[in-house]
Amino acid sequence: MKYAIGVDFGTLSARAIVIDEHGNELAESVMEYPHGVMETQLPGGAQLGVDWALQHPGDYLLCLEHTVLDATKQAGLQGEDIAGIGIDFTSCTVLPVLKDGTPLCMLPEYQNIPHAYPKLWKHHAAQYCADRFNEVASQRGESWLPYYGGKISSEWAIPKALQILSEAPEVYRAMDLFIEGGDWIVWQLCGSPAASACNAGYKAQWRYGEGYPSSEFFKALDPYFEHFADKLLTDIFPLGQRAGFVTEAMARRCGLCTGTAVAVGIIDAHASVPACGIDGPGKMLIAMGTSSCHLLMSREEKGVPGTCGIVRDGILPGLYAYEAGQSCVGDHFSWFIDNCLPQSYAKEAGERGLNPHQLLREKTSAKQPGESGLVALDWWNGARSTLMDFDLSGAMIGMNLSTKPEDIYRALIEATAYGTRNIIEAFTSAGVPVDELYAGGGIARKDPFAMQIYADICNREITIVDSNQSGALGAAILGLAAAGQQEDIYDIVRRVGRTGQTKYIPNPEHVAIYDQLFEQYMLLHDYFGKEHSQLMHLLKSLRHKSQPSLA
Amino acid sequence: MKYAIGVDFGTLSARAIVIDEHGNELAESVMEYPHGVMETQLPGGAQLGVDWALQHPGDYLLCLEHTVLDATKQAGLQGEDIAGIGIDFTSCTVLPVLKDGTPLCMLPEYQNIPHAYPKLWKHHAAQYCADRFNEVASQRGESWLPYYGGKISSEWAIPKALQILSEAPEVYRAMDLFIEGGDWIVWQLCGSPAASACNAGYKAQWRYGEGYPSSEFFKALDPYFEHFADKLLTDIFPLGQRAGFVTEAMARRCGLCTGTAVAVGIIDAHASVPACGIDGPGKMLIAMGTSSCHLLMSREEKGVPGTCGIVRDGILPGLYAYEAGQSCVGDHFSWFIDNCLPQSYAKEAGERGLNPHQLLREKTSAKQPGESGLVALDWWNGARSTLMDFDLSGAMIGMNLSTKPEDIYRALIEATAYGTRNIIEAFTSAGVPVDELYAGGGIARKDPFAMQIYADICNREITIVDSNQSGALGAAILGLAAAGQQEDIYDIVRRVGRTGQTKYIPNPEHVAIYDQLFEQYMLLHDYFGKEHSQLMHLLKSLRHKSQPSLA
Repeated sequence: MKYAIGVDFGTLSARAIVIDEHGNELAESVMEYPHGVMETQLPGGAQLGVDWALQHPGDYLLCLEHTVLDATKQAGLQGEDIAGIGIDFTSCTVLPVLKDGTPLCMLPEYQNIPHAYPKLWKHHAAQYCADRFNEVASQRGESWLPYYGGKISSEWAIPKALQILSEAPEVYRAMDLFIEGGDWIVWQLCGSPAASACNAGYKAQWRYGEGYPSSEFFKALDPYFEHFADKLLTDIFPLGQRAGFVTEAMARRCGLCTGTAVAVGIIDAHASVPACGIDGPGKMLIAMGTSSCHLLMSREEKGVPGTCGIVRDGILPGLYAYEAGQSCVGDHFSWFIDNCLPQSYAKEAGERGLNPHQLLREKTSAKQPGESGLVALDWWNGARSTLMDFDLSGAMIGMNLSTKPEDIYRALIEATAYGTRNIIEAFTSAGVPVDELYAGGGIARKDPFAMQIYADICNREITIVDSNQSGALGAAILGLAAAGQQEDIYDIVRRVGRTGQTKYIPNPEHVAIYDQLFEQYMLLHDYFGKEHSQLMHLLKSLRHKSQPSLA
Repeated sequence: MKYAIGVDFGTLSARAIVIDEHGNELAESVMEYPHGVMETQLPGGAQLGVDWALQHPGDYLLCLEHTVLDATKQAGLQGEDIAGIGIDFTSCTVLPVLKDGTPLCMLPEYQNIPHAYPKLWKHHAAQYCADRFNEVASQRGESWLPYYGGKISSEWAIPKALQILSEAPEVYRAMDLFIEGGDWIVWQLCGSPAASACNAGYKAQWRYGEGYPSSEFFKALDPYFEHFADKLLTDIFPLGQRAGFVTEAMARRCGLCTGTAVAVGIIDAHASVPACGIDGPGKMLIAMGTSSCHLLMSREEKGVPGTCGIVRDGILPGLYAYEAGQSCVGDHFSWFIDNCLPQSYAKEAGERGLNPHQLLREKTSAKQPGESGLVALDWWNGARSTLMDFDLSGAMIGMNLSTKPEDIYRALIEATAYGTRNIIEAFTSAGVPVDELYAGGGIARKDPFAMQIYADICNREITIVDSNQSGALGAAILGLAAAGQQEDIYDIVRRVGRTGQTKYIPNPEHVAIYDQLFEQYMLLHDYFGKEHSQLMHLLKSLRHKSQPSLA
């Protein structure tokens, strides 16, 4: 029997699972990052600006070692039993490193320099660099631009690098490479860099057969940026490949062996696709976490406005993989609990042994669609698909003196579902079919109330992915594939991946009401997102002006 | 020495004060209405529809007797010492009564019939009747329409009566009179009806020299409504007049004497004008309570869009009195505390001995204008001036994951101040000068933070009215005038009214930021209130469809 480990690096923690070759999960281990997400200051006290979000690379290594050791032990296995290990990681989470892979922020002279740290996916302070990128790419008519929805997000690698050049040129000069966290972990494991086509393709505009954008393009962004591509990894590996084997040092630290194959890394959301057995085109997976990611494969390559990338072999070989996303889903609901839950509700939840989410769901589930009188725009963390504008912000319309907390909470859920329907319609309008909907992640599995709303608003049946760790399971599948290079990865996906039996069926009465509300959502979407986007842009700029800038 | 009593009938309680002829306040007594505001059901269990708000007339009498007795006793006076009594009342709060003044709801056969009860000013369920009124009045080109801002509110008497005719024709037939609460109390005190020009002029479209709208107009609303004017009081008295003397029965119940003069009633907000010594044109008073009312006098009569009425001698003789208003001010902040204050804030407030409003003000006062990143529309209770559309609702724009409760709270305060600036600009654009701003009511006196925001947003100096009961003080001034009919009321106003020394001066830096935000507020105002008002209208209609209708 062969075993593999998948390690899922999320926003707040890492999680390792051990599976056998049939996909049975034998053990799981989770560890939170000691530094979490750094949004206001560095451990040494240096202040961060508005919209910053950094992490500490030491946390990644610590959590890797601890969870792999612990999960292996729990499974009753030895290092020699682990044939392969796969990694999935949040993206685009990028860090500046030296030639040997040492993160700049681990050097004493950089430990108080914010730009030396990994920028987490939701670091949004590079918006002005993304604006510059989009302006220049559009003016130059870059041929790859339509395949990224015509507009690049501030979350991605090149705007984040350009922000370093603009604000901390000494860090830019000092870094030899600017690398995805997932690629960095793979490098740490196997001792040599092996970049993932998934990371490079989605987040750094690398295209099969064409490479990264041209030096002319980089020069047009900034003369000092001309040779930026030299700071990106150029050995790009397709998914399902082996990057190498675990080094002796890492085998010791993680309790593995030097025969353990290391898979090329994958983006966390994308890892869920093989995990739930998706093996062909037209099956959209919504990976629902703090944010949501929409993944779809197709035999054809077509520009879809507001998507985040189309990458050949980006998830599975032979198909074009499309990505779209929403920046604020679970974050939304957590924000509400942290900032808006009244004392009486907190008390009731405590007395009845419910968590606040359960209480709010219970209170609102007695109501009909439309009864809240509210419609919201789900842009608390900016708008990814289909507007790609992170200077937008949230809106809640329809409040009155009868509005209850559960009404607002439900409107937030509905808003994220409207956002998903908008994404589905962008695909189908562009001629990329969406035949089936799958959903994975904590919300999909744990919140039947929200998922029924999604089914009602999208007017589509939704199948829930039957794993509590679809990211880690996908990574483990890649670990199995890396270990047995002779086996077709599609066979592994069909054997190990699991779709699940839970399905949500649209309620026709709800669909009729939500159709009307979706029309209003789209009116608001177009008004605040396009026609009068200067309104939210002004609000954001005033917010920034009043707050401390980069220390 | 002469003494007078003023009784202020508010939304939740009545309050009596005793003053001497110099305006010194000797005593005060407050009592809450036992039935409060009935919004969901009658005491007997009959269910109310959405947007209903009823009261119990027994509460008015009970509170009248208790507070007058108590205040007189506290002041160490006897009934014989009280030369006059004045009444101010919320408006338009109207009730169906028999010829002898008996409220229909006090008859056993009507006590479970919602339409038999007084409809409180904020009963908004007659919106469809107001819509009908406005359509017909506009089609017929009624000459009085421009003096009511071109549009009538659902809060006023005729739509409320039309709702009774439409939904409970038996109540409509049974009522001999449809009467303002304030006029009803005056009737109870002096034994014969004496309607106030202020009530009739503002709330029932009565015009000096012209009377009520024509029977042709009423007939056009509904054939059965043709003779509605017969159900309105026709002896209309100017303000400052005596309605009569206290009857023996009421003297006994309230501890007064039959020599106590009873003044013609005044609307609560309007009573504040004489109370703060306003004796001429161009001085706008903002009466700030659960809602706000803007009162301004002018030598000229001009149509101002979105105002609520222009009434000759409506506040003081010889001047045209203009009214405008906002439906949701204090209600706004209370809604927030009741529904949105998180547990941690409630706990902190408790531990530090602050009320939640103080805590929120403290937290937000450290921030600059614009720092919240938010702009809101203050329509939680519909929009009175300048849109006159109670199917509109609130909006909060700009939320993000950093948004804190105090940011939302501040945005609500700012929204009401933008609404006031919009009203001021409507007056000045129409050629009715606003030279000075005065503010009275609880918020004006107790919330320096809010008042500084009002000064900054309106870019005008604001003088605060130096009385904690300006409504009751104004009523007491009318009581003095009723007692001594030989003295010019202007002399009494100048002697007894008091403006106060507290002034708020605009901060030029804040003004510059708020000017930008007000421009955005007006864009939102026009979008949601005019161009795309169907959006909030749909939200409201869906809310209604899902809720139980009239029992």
